[in-house]
Amino acid sequence: MSAGPGAAWGVPGLPGTVVVKVSGKHINPEKPNMVKGYAEVFRSLHREGYRLAVVVGGGPVARAYIAAAREAGVNRALQDVLGIEAARLNARLLAAALHPEAYPEPPRSIWEALEAAATGKIVIAGGFQPGQSTAGVAALLAEALNADLLVLATTVDGVYTADPRRSPEAKLIPRLDYETLRKVLQQSVEPGRYELLDPLALSIVERSKIPVRVVNGSDPDNVARVVRGSDVGSLIATTKQ
Amino acid sequence: MSAGPGAAWGVPGLPGTVVVKVSGKHINPEKPNMVKGYAEVFRSLHREGYRLAVVVGGGPVARAYIAAAREAGVNRALQDVLGIEAARLNARLLAAALHPEAYPEPPRSIWEALEAAATGKIVIAGGFQPGQSTAGVAALLAEALNADLLVLATTVDGVYTADPRRSPEAKLIPRLDYETLRKVLQQSVEPGRYELLDPLALSIVERSKIPVRVVNGSDPDNVARVVRGSDVGSLIATTKQ
Amino acid sequence: MSAGPGAAWGVPGLPGTVVVKVSGKHINPEKPNMVKGYAEVFRSLHREGYRLAVVVGGGPVARAYIAAAREAGVNRALQDVLGIEAARLNARLLAAALHPEAYPEPPRSIWEALEAAATGKIVIAGGFQPGQSTAGVAALLAEALNADLLVLATTVDGVYTADPRRSPEAKLIPRLDYETLRKVLQQSVEPGRYELLDPLALSIVERSKIPVRVVNGSDPDNVARVVRGSDVGSLIATTKQ
Amino acid sequence: MSAGPGAAWGVPGLPGTVVVKVSGKHINPEKPNMVKGYAEVFRSLHREGYRLAVVVGGGPVARAYIAAAREAGVNRALQDVLGIEAARLNARLLAAALHPEAYPEPPRSIWEALEAAATGKIVIAGGFQPGQSTAGVAALLAEALNADLLVLATTVDGVYTADPRRSPEAKLIPRLDYETLRKVLQQSVEPGRYELLDPLALSIVERSKIPVRVVNGSDPDNVARVVRGSDVGSLIATTKQ
Amino acid sequence: MSAGPGAAWGVPGLPGTVVVKVSGKHINPEKPNMVKGYAEVFRSLHREGYRLAVVVGGGPVARAYIAAAREAGVNRALQDVLGIEAARLNARLLAAALHPEAYPEPPRSIWEALEAAATGKIVIAGGFQPGQSTAGVAALLAEALNADLLVLATTVDGVYTADPRRSPEAKLIPRLDYETLRKVLQQSVEPGRYELLDPLALSIVERSKIPVRVVNGSDPDNVARVVRGSDVGSLIATTKQ
Amino acid sequence: MSAGPGAAWGVPGLPGTVVVKVSGKHINPEKPNMVKGYAEVFRSLHREGYRLAVVVGGGPVARAYIAAAREAGVNRALQDVLGIEAARLNARLLAAALHPEAYPEPPRSIWEALEAAATGKIVIAGGFQPGQSTAGVAALLAEALNADLLVLATTVDGVYTADPRRSPEAKLIPRLDYETLRKVLQQSVEPGRYELLDPLALSIVERSKIPVRVVNGSDPDNVARVVRGSDVGSLIATTKQ
Repeated sequence: MSAGPGAAWGVPGLPGTVVVKVSGKHINPEKPNMVKGYAEVFRSLHREGYRLAVVVGGGPVARAYIAAAREAGVNRALQDVLGIEAARLNARLLAAALHPEAYPEPPRSIWEALEAAATGKIVIAGGFQPGQSTAGVAALLAEALNADLLVLATTVDGVYTADPRRSPEAKLIPRLDYETLRKVLQQSVEPGRYELLDPLALSIVERSKIPVRVVNGSDPDNVARVVRGSDVGSLIATTKQ
Repeated sequence: MSAGPGAAWGVPGLPGTVVVKVSGKHINPEKPNMVKGYAEVFRSLHREGYRLAVVVGGGPVARAYIAAAREAGVNRALQDVLGIEAARLNARLLAAALHPEAYPEPPRSIWEALEAAATGKIVIAGGFQPGQSTAGVAALLAEALNADLLVLATTVDGVYTADPRRSPEAKLIPRLDYETLRKVLQQSVEPGRYELLDPLALSIVERSKIPVRVVNGSDPDNVARVVRGSDVGSLIATTKQ
Repeated sequence: MSAGPGAAWGVPGLPGTVVVKVSGKHINPEKPNMVKGYAEVFRSLHREGYRLAVVVGGGPVARAYIAAAREAGVNRALQDVLGIEAARLNARLLAAALHPEAYPEPPRSIWEALEAAATGKIVIAGGFQPGQSTAGVAALLAEALNADLLVLATTVDGVYTADPRRSPEAKLIPRLDYETLRKVLQQSVEPGRYELLDPLALSIVERSKIPVRVVNGSDPDNVARVVRGSDVGSLIATTKQ
Repeated sequence: MSAGPGAAWGVPGLPGTVVVKVSGKHINPEKPNMVKGYAEVFRSLHREGYRLAVVVGGGPVARAYIAAAREAGVNRALQDVLGIEAARLNARLLAAALHPEAYPEPPRSIWEALEAAATGKIVIAGGFQPGQSTAGVAALLAEALNADLLVLATTVDGVYTADPRRSPEAKLIPRLDYETLRKVLQQSVEPGRYELLDPLALSIVERSKIPVRVVNGSDPDNVARVVRGSDVGSLIATTKQ
Repeated sequence: MSAGPGAAWGVPGLPGTVVVKVSGKHINPEKPNMVKGYAEVFRSLHREGYRLAVVVGGGPVARAYIAAAREAGVNRALQDVLGIEAARLNARLLAAALHPEAYPEPPRSIWEALEAAATGKIVIAGGFQPGQSTAGVAALLAEALNADLLVLATTVDGVYTADPRRSPEAKLIPRLDYETLRKVLQQSVEPGRYELLDPLALSIVERSKIPVRVVNGSDPDNVARVVRGSDVGSLIATTKQ
Repeated sequence: MSAGPGAAWGVPGLPGTVVVKVSGKHINPEKPNMVKGYAEVFRSLHREGYRLAVVVGGGPVARAYIAAAREAGVNRALQDVLGIEAARLNARLLAAALHPEAYPEPPRSIWEALEAAATGKIVIAGGFQPGQSTAGVAALLAEALNADLLVLATTVDGVYTADPRRSPEAKLIPRLDYETLRKVLQQSVEPGRYELLDPLALSIVERSKIPVRVVNGSDPDNVARVVRGSDVGSLIATTKQ
C-alpha cells in the first residue's frame, strides 16, 4: 500500500527530507494529546530515516499575546514578533515531547534553521519574520533543505472546489498542479478562511517544483501516512514528473 | 515627600540601581492594562535615571504549558524550562510595551543579563533555571548588579504576622530584618502560599545586605513609590545601617 | 529652510528615528566615493541626534554570487541567502566607513536588529530573508523602531506618473497617499523596473502610517535633506495628519 | 560480572545516558594524569555507545579566583561567576584531552547544554549559576537528559553512616533510598564536609527517581565500573523498581 | 595505486582528517564550474569517511572590498576584516554547493570552527583574523583537529627549486622536509609570489609534524588524489616517520 | 603637567581612545591588590571620557593549564586555546573589579571586540588566537579602534639599549621611532626575555603610525600617567608628526 513518499509522485531514493506545517490549532497547551500524537508520529518517521523539519503555528496563545500587545500600545511589527514567540513556545512544547530526537531551540531565521538541521535532529520552528505566514516559513524551509515533500496539516481534509465548511457540494480535489491551486485560491470567496498556501509560499513551491500534500491534521497519523506514500488528502505537484 | 530610594534606608547618591520582581499574575496577556501600567512606571523611573532590571513570573500561561508538557510525558526539568519560556514571553510583552527603553531579549543566564545591562537599557528577565524561584532570580540579579533595592511586587500588601488571606488578625510588619523574615516564613503554616523569598533568595539578600521592599503589585504605582523612597508595604533590611 | 523631518508632515519633537534604504547600486565596492559620501551623511545625522537604521541592497556583487550559485546547482532559497550575504558585505563596507558610529555586525533578523539598536549605534542591515525585498526589510524595521520617516534612496528622483526612463512626459508626484502609490505601481507597465515598495512593504507603511520619502540616492545629500525636513523627491503619507 | 548500568537497578536497554559529576579536586591543572585517566574512561564509554554529560567542579583554581575577587571588592554573585568560569576552564582541559569526542564549549545554561548534547558529543559543563552546587547542576542535567544514572565521583568511597574521615567506625552503606540519604545527610555533624547531594539536588533525583552512584573518584576506573554495572560504592535508588 | 592518505607518509587507520586550503582564485563567483568541481570532490571524500575542513581565500572579491575600504578611509584592520568577510562569502558559496554535507556557517575563530566540526559536517572557513594568511588559518585548523594531512590547492604544481613562472629550469621537488621548505622559501627571489606557507604557518606544521601536500588546485581532482594517497605535487613531511 | 595623551605626541582633541596591554604577571589571582589598582586606574580614565580597551595576559595560570594539557596529550593548538582561556579568566577578574564600567564578557575575536566596544563599556580581552602574542592582540585592537595610543604595561621601565636585567649599563631610551625599535629588538641577545612587540605587532603599529608607550606596569598609576600625557617610560612613534 505504501512505498515511501515517492510512490505518489515518482521521486526515488526514499526515505527523504520532509517539511511539515502543523496548525497552531493542533499544537498548543490545551491539546496535550495532540502534542503527544504528533511527537509519536515524528519520532517514528525520524527513526525510519526521514529528515524532518516542522513549522508550528501560534494558535490561541499567539492571538492572546497579540491582542494584549495591541491594547498596551505595542506597534504592529512587535505584535507580530510576540505572535512568533508564542508559536515558538508551541514549538518548544513539541520539541520537549520529542526529546532528545528534536533540536531543542526553535530557529528564528533561515540561518539558524540550517545550523540546527546540521545536527541531524528534527528541527521545529515557529516563525521567522513579522508579516510572514507559517506556510511561507514551511515553503522556504522546504526549498532550502531540498525537501522531497511539504505536508500541510490543516483543519480540513484537503483542497476543495469551494470552502467545505460553507458549500455542501464542495468536493475534495485529490490531485492538482500549482496553477490550478492558484485559481482555486483566487476564486474562493474567502481564501483566508481555510489554511493553505499564501501567494508567496505558492510561488516558492512552484518555482522549485516541491510536491505539497494537504491533509487533515486533526489526526496526526495522516501526516505519517502521506510521508510514507499513502494517497491521503490532496497532492499539489507538477502535471508530469 | 520623597528623596529617592535612600530615604527609607539611608543610602546616599540617588537615583540608583533597582531590581523589581513582578508576579506573573500581574504581567500576562489577560491583563494588558497592568502591562501598560508597569511599562509607564518603569519608563518614568528609567528617565529619572534609575538603572532597572525586572524579573517577571510565568503566571497562568506557564502553568498551562507545564501541565500540557506533563500530560505529554515531558520530564520535570523540561517542564520547568517551558515554564521559564512562558515567563520570558511575558517578559517580552512587557519589553515590547517599554520599547525602545527595554532590552528586547530576556536573558536566560546571569551572563546574558550582564551583557544586556551593559547597554544601559531596562533588562527584563523571565527565569534562569529549572527549580529556581522568580524571587531567587531577582535576588541574584540584585546582588550581581550591586542593586540598592530589591522590590517584590506581590499580590499582598507586605509581610504579615500570618497569612492575611486566612487570618483576619494578621498584621502587616512595616519593617523587619532578615532574621525576623526567616522566622516569619518558617512559622507560616503554608509558606509557599504567598509569594516571598525562598530560603536561597533570602540568604542572598542577607549576605549582601540588600534592602527588600514587599509591596502590593496590583497597583504598579506602589513600585514607583518605594523606588522613589516612600514607605509603602514592608521593608526588610539590617537593623542598623 | 529646514525644521527637521517634521516640517513636511507635521511630526513634532525632532530629531527622530529614521530608516533609510539605499540601493546596492549606490553602495558597493565599485563606488568608494558613494560609500564615503553616505558615511558622512549618516555620521552628521547621527551626531545631530537622529536614531538611524540603514538597509543596503546587494547590487552587482549579489547578482554575481546568485548567478554562480545557480550554475553550481544551488537551490533558490540558498541562492537568495547568498544574495543577502552579499548585501551584508556591502553593509559591512558602509559600517566600516562609519566606524565607530555604526554597529559593526549587520543583523540577520528583526531580533538581531533590535539588539543592535539597543546600543544606540547606527544599525546597518543587508536583508533578513529569502524572497523579501530590501524595501520590505526597511519597512519592517521602520515599523518595529517606531520610525518617524522611511527614506528610499533610489536611482530616480521620486515617484513618477510613469516610468521616467521610458516616458518623457512622466511627471514627478511631489506628494501622494498610500492608495495613490498603490495605483501608480499597478498601472506601471513594468513596476519592477524602478525600485520602490513592493505590495508587502506598502501594506506595512500604510497600516502604520509611516511617512515615506523617495529621493534620488545618487546624491547622498538628498537623504540628509529630507531627514532634516526639506521637500525633496516624493512624499508618501496619509492625506491629512 | 557486568551487564551494563541496568544490572544493579533493573533498567533494561543498555547502554544508556549517564551524567557524571567529578570533583574539582580530581580535574585541575595540578593533576594531568587524572585528566588523562578520566579522558580515557569517558572515551571508552562513549565508544561503547553511552551518551555522556560530565560536570566538573572548580577546585583550587576556583578558590583562588574567588578569594582574589573578594579582596578586590567584587560582589558575591560575581565571585561565584568567577568560580564557575574556573570550573569551566577545568571542563575545557578535560574536553581538550577528550578531543574530538567532547563538545568543545562548556555550556553555561540548561539551554546551551541541550544544544551541545544535540551533536551527540560528550558534554562537559562547569556550572550554571551562582549559588548552585556542582551536584545540583549534575542532577538537573540528569533529569533534563532522561539519564539512566547519575554518578558522583567524590573523594570518599561512598555514603557512610558517619563521616569516614572522623569516625573510624563509620560504615559504607552499599544501597539506600532517597529518604534514607536525606536522614544520613541531616544527622551528619558536618554535612558539608564530604561532597554529596545538597537538598535541591536530592529533591531532583528523588522526584524523577534517578539512580545515583557515589564512588571514589580518585580512581577514574570506578566511574567506568559503575556505568558498566558493577556494584561499587553506594547506590541511591528507590526501594523497589 | 592508492591506499588512502597514509600510503605516502605511513599513517595507518584511514580514512582520516584532512584540512584543505583552496586559493580564492579557484573559488569565487566567476568560476561556478570550479565551485561545482570542488563540491563534488569534497562530497565524495566526505562520503568515503574523511573528516574535512576547508579554508577558502578571498580572491578578487576580497581585493575589491579592501580597495574600496581604503579609498573610503577605513583603517587597515577593518580593511582586513572586509577581506575576510569576502573570503567567507566564497566559503558560503562552496558550502551552498555542498549542502547539506557542509556546515552552513563559516567559522570566524578557532572556537567556532571546533563547534562546527562537532556536527560532523564539512567545515568551510574563510579567515579568522586580520593579518593572518589563509594558509596560516589552515595550518592552525589542521593542528587543532589533529589532521592527518594538510593540502594546499594552489596555482602551481607543487614546490619548485625556483619560481616556475620565471625560471624555465625550475624543478618540482616531489618530497622535502620542513627545514628544506624553509630554505626554498627564503632563497626565492619573491617568496610571496607563489602561494605557500608563511613562516607562522610553517612553524605550526613543523612543530606538530603535519604532512603537507602542495598541488595544483586548477584541477579539483588533484585534491581528491592526494587525499586518497596518490603521489601528486609535493609532499612536505619529516624525513623519517 | 599634563594635557592629555596628545601632549607628548601632538594629537589634539582629547580624551581619546587608548588600548592597554597588561602582563599576566600583574593581573592574576595571586595579586588582588594589583587587580584593584588597575580597576581604579581604568575606572578613573573611563569617567574622564577615555574610550578604553585592555588586553590581559595569561600569566602563571595559563602556564599551568598549558603544561597540564601537554602532559595529558593535548595538541599544541588546543594547549594555546587553554592559555587564552586562562587569560580570559584573568580578564574576567579585572572586569568584575570594574563592574559595571567594563563589558562583562572578554571577546574572542575582533568581531566580538567590536560588538563589545559598541556599548561604550571598557572592553577587556584575553587573547584571540593560538600562536598570537598578547601584544599582537593589543596592536590589532588599537588599529581597529583607531586608537590614539597603545600602552604596554610591562615588567620593565621602558625600552632599553640592552636587557636591563643583565646589563647594568643598559640605558632607557625615552623616545624612538618604529625602525629604531626594530633594530633594538633584533640586536637584543634574548629578545623574548622582556615583553615588547613581536614583529607582527610592530608592523601593525608602524603601518598605522600608532604611538606606543612602554611603561612599568608594576605601578598601575604609570598607565594613568601616560594616558593623561605624562612622559613616563619610552615612547615609540614616528619621528615627526
